[in-house]
Amino acid sequence: MPNGGPEIEQLIQLLARLPGLGPRSARRAVLHLIKRKEQLMIPLSAALDRAVAAVRTCEVCGNVDTASPCSICADPRRGESGILIVVEDVADLWALERAGVGNVRYHVLGGVLSPLDGIGPDDLHLDGLIERAPAYGEIVLAMNATVEGQTTAHYITDRLAGTGIKITRLAHGVPVGGELDYLDEGTLSQALKARTAL
Amino acid sequence: MPNGGPEIEQLIQLLARLPGLGPRSARRAVLHLIKRKEQLMIPLSAALDRAVAAVRTCEVCGNVDTASPCSICADPRRGESGILIVVEDVADLWALERAGVGNVRYHVLGGVLSPLDGIGPDDLHLDGLIERAPAYGEIVLAMNATVEGQTTAHYITDRLAGTGIKITRLAHGVPVGGELDYLDEGTLSQALKARTAL
Repeated sequence: MPNGGPEIEQLIQLLARLPGLGPRSARRAVLHLIKRKEQLMIPLSAALDRAVAAVRTCEVCGNVDTASPCSICADPRRGESGILIVVEDVADLWALERAGVGNVRYHVLGGVLSPLDGIGPDDLHLDGLIERAPAYGEIVLAMNATVEGQTTAHYITDRLAGTGIKITRLAHGVPVGGELDYLDEGTLSQALKARTAL
Repeated sequence: MPNGGPEIEQLIQLLARLPGLGPRSARRAVLHLIKRKEQLMIPLSAALDRAVAAVRTCEVCGNVDTASPCSICADPRRGESGILIVVEDVADLWALERAGVGNVRYHVLGGVLSPLDGIGPDDLHLDGLIERAPAYGEIVLAMNATVEGQTTAHYITDRLAGTGIKITRLAHGVPVGGELDYLDEGTLSQALKARTAL
């Protein structure tokens, strides 16, 4: 047992399964933890325990929170805008919240349609979306700009056809701070088509 | 609380303090954990608890293990070679063990001399080394090839002068798999000086 006993070895192996950490960086992380037992390792252990006990998935929107309905679904001001943003994943919801998009609500699909991976409409939280949609004035489809994301957006548009609900998608264009030279042709051509007056 | 409650926010902040993880990757890691609550989050929490309880620093060599003296110091075969390898850090000990250097023992200094950072001889585990050294036939100074590492090696050589113990250091040279073109001049010149017959 070169790396100091089975307890340490197991901790390394579990940490190595986190995204962004491999076996080598997990080993460094564990040493870092052991050296900072009081300041970091014990608080992290306690924080994990608390999160395991507290975290649940919102049964309305699919967000991850410590309450269900989550704080966004429970906040009446969030409903006033009448905007429901559909995202693939909780990470996308968090990203939009960090961007400060305002008083909106979300619906987390939990993935995208991907026939090659065997992921069909029944594997996503689509029924909940169809049920919630009529309560909102506008559905923003904020899927990733990938083939699967756009396929999923088309599918949802078809499902909501005839309901009269306004359906929009995020704008394509030049990322803020981005350089034209490094952009792909598709983005550039979309950015030109959607040009706005100054 | 955009990211789902104080428990989640705190877990993100603690994970972000690990080397190799920043705020963004810590957030991804926490979502990864939450999605794999049974398979990863709960086992990780338990592994941390066990490690917190079990891990201690070996009072002989400074290695991190679940026993003190550690498994290396307690293994009589490790003493037979008469070789004691001095390293800066436990990570270096682990690296040498992974390299399979054989039946050797170690001494972890816990750092290097660095006057600019206020780290002097009293801040390192040097007295223990001076005490242990006479029991070994050879002391290998395996400090990093940095200015501080080499300063520390010189200091140890001075402290052990007159004891008659053989003191060696790791070879400098071309890393296995390395390309000459990418090597610095110092390494290349050392590699040429230390060339070996084929």
